[in-house]
Amino acid sequence: MRVEQLPVQTNTGNYNVYIGKGLRHQVETYLPKQYNQVFIITDSHIANMYLNDVVDSFSSEVKVSTYTVPAGENSKQMDWFHECHTYAIESGLERSDLIVALGGGVVGDLAGFVAATYMRGVDYIQVPTTILAHDSSVGGKVAINHPQGKNMIGSFHQPQAVIYDTETLDTLPGTEWRSGMAEVIKHALIADEEMLEQCFDLPSFDAISNETIADLLKKGIHIKASIVQEDEKEKGVRRYLNLGHTLGHAIEAESGYSSITHGEAVAIGIDFALFLSAKQFPEANLPNEAFRKWLEKHNYPLSSKLEEYNLDALMEKIKKDKKNNHQQIRIVLLSSIGEPTLVPYSEQSLMAELIEFRNEVRNS
Amino acid sequence: MRVEQLPVQTNTGNYNVYIGKGLRHQVETYLPKQYNQVFIITDSHIANMYLNDVVDSFSSEVKVSTYTVPAGENSKQMDWFHECHTYAIESGLERSDLIVALGGGVVGDLAGFVAATYMRGVDYIQVPTTILAHDSSVGGKVAINHPQGKNMIGSFHQPQAVIYDTETLDTLPGTEWRSGMAEVIKHALIADEEMLEQCFDLPSFDAISNETIADLLKKGIHIKASIVQEDEKEKGVRRYLNLGHTLGHAIEAESGYSSITHGEAVAIGIDFALFLSAKQFPEANLPNEAFRKWLEKHNYPLSSKLEEYNLDALMEKIKKDKKNNHQQIRIVLLSSIGEPTLVPYSEQSLMAELIEFRNEVRNS
Repeated sequence: MRVEQLPVQTNTGNYNVYIGKGLRHQVETYLPKQYNQVFIITDSHIANMYLNDVVDSFSSEVKVSTYTVPAGENSKQMDWFHECHTYAIESGLERSDLIVALGGGVVGDLAGFVAATYMRGVDYIQVPTTILAHDSSVGGKVAINHPQGKNMIGSFHQPQAVIYDTETLDTLPGTEWRSGMAEVIKHALIADEEMLEQCFDLPSFDAISNETIADLLKKGIHIKASIVQEDEKEKGVRRYLNLGHTLGHAIEAESGYSSITHGEAVAIGIDFALFLSAKQFPEANLPNEAFRKWLEKHNYPLSSKLEEYNLDALMEKIKKDKKNNHQQIRIVLLSSIGEPTLVPYSEQSLMAELIEFRNEVRNS
Repeated sequence: MRVEQLPVQTNTGNYNVYIGKGLRHQVETYLPKQYNQVFIITDSHIANMYLNDVVDSFSSEVKVSTYTVPAGENSKQMDWFHECHTYAIESGLERSDLIVALGGGVVGDLAGFVAATYMRGVDYIQVPTTILAHDSSVGGKVAINHPQGKNMIGSFHQPQAVIYDTETLDTLPGTEWRSGMAEVIKHALIADEEMLEQCFDLPSFDAISNETIADLLKKGIHIKASIVQEDEKEKGVRRYLNLGHTLGHAIEAESGYSSITHGEAVAIGIDFALFLSAKQFPEANLPNEAFRKWLEKHNYPLSSKLEEYNLDALMEKIKKDKKNNHQQIRIVLLSSIGEPTLVPYSEQSLMAELIEFRNEVRNS
């Protein structure tokens, strides 16, 4: 399999996304310039499997330090952010050095935010090891969570490169496949009907070939990169990437970022967004049924999950969503496949919809 | 006295610095646009004196929330940063709202970094209440301290306006005058010989007129703004603004950011930089003697202070300076008045200089 290369343009510079088998053994080769020292941030799960490979990929002239946080969303918070800074300082990391984010979305967001703020900003690259990270590793959004909201504390900081080794996906558990594929199908829903059909036609996730997943990642990244290029700071079209995320983030926050993965929560959010879309745009030919079937086929937690949450508590989280404006809740819906749009809701009307949605899911 | 207006251009947008008497009563008037909600961050000392004035300066349609941190450099750290975020979330602050930094450099840096990272960045303005803040409020450098180094965690985030009420300087204690005037004379040293003479000719700080200090602040801000416009992200000439800061930051860090003010520490650093400059550029006509006299005239803590510090400990801090590159220490010196330059030192040679400097100060 050849190495795919996708250029991404941003206001603060351009970088490449490389997708291929075994790239973790050649990280230094794909860097846009030479660095004196690198500081690799990873998690305990990934460290066991791939940290040595990445460390060994650097030539002996490069000083390599590493720091490992516990695996899981709980590492994406202030205490670990501070610890990363402490270890970076202690390892003598300088402004002209490089931080490497080796792992999934949690490590990418955390390490990226460390890079954004260490000495007011150092270079970093993403070396994603999950499907979900095809989304988070592109676009320069970096952040940590606040107990009261996901990604509430962060900034925009573009990586110098994204180096995607598809071999690392072989060991992903089913729940991580579901988490990542929710963002893949989200990209298809907002931009590419053909890709959406490709998603609907997929076999069970453990039967997907390396070539197929590389192809879907490339398409997803291309969609994301095109939108980010147009609107780096999320003043306009970038908001559409939040399809499913208003309710999804609220569910994640309510679960304490532990009992459900990001993508699985977003999948419920997309399902809700399609439910709302069908009511807002009754003439549109929306794939609500096919999407619900796809969720069931791939064992997404849907009906069972929603029963676990207090709707008032979810609404409190939704009201803190970053897309809101003038106390008005704004949700990304689809007026048709590939046509996202931002629709305002009052708290009351959205609560009524949420209750109706839960009943519908319960009875489906 | 009329209101002075200085435009500042940056890559991410232009803003104005307003300097005048009583401006804290007209904050809303000087905003570049209308905001729905503002969140004022200040400290306990300033809150007592000016918070009500600033709150009252907003019309009744604007929702105003406030958060007060304890006065002093110790508030510029992770815990207070997190608290500011918590209160901003709880007050319902949205992405399109405004944060107001009301206070000196500590509040400006802290509130600015909160603004830089709250929901990945919201607008903010600086309402400085110290002379020192003429330096920190312009240029978009925002940060908090790490126990191992000052301003280690931060970013670049330009304010929407700087609204400087010179009346707030009337209540400044002597130590704050010394702290701020060190940065004023630093600006003169690196860029304006005439202004330097004006500084040397000043009467004792408590006898300076409102017009004179407004004039010096305007000149200082103009120098800083010109340099920042040229080099926003400190890749080149902006480094020259760090004259005196390598040793100054080390002294502050060693003192735990409490027993000496920023500017008083920088004054020692400038004295050291002039000492080194005279040795590097023996032909230059440097103002070492006049500067030392100026320090003595205005009661800066110099010789006594340096004895309090362990030089090895200072060197450890200096080695972590953000200007360093490839393990080489780099210090801003003057090849003549208005001509700063970056000079590399090895750890050993700098230590020898530091010992010699301390002896010279001891015997002076």
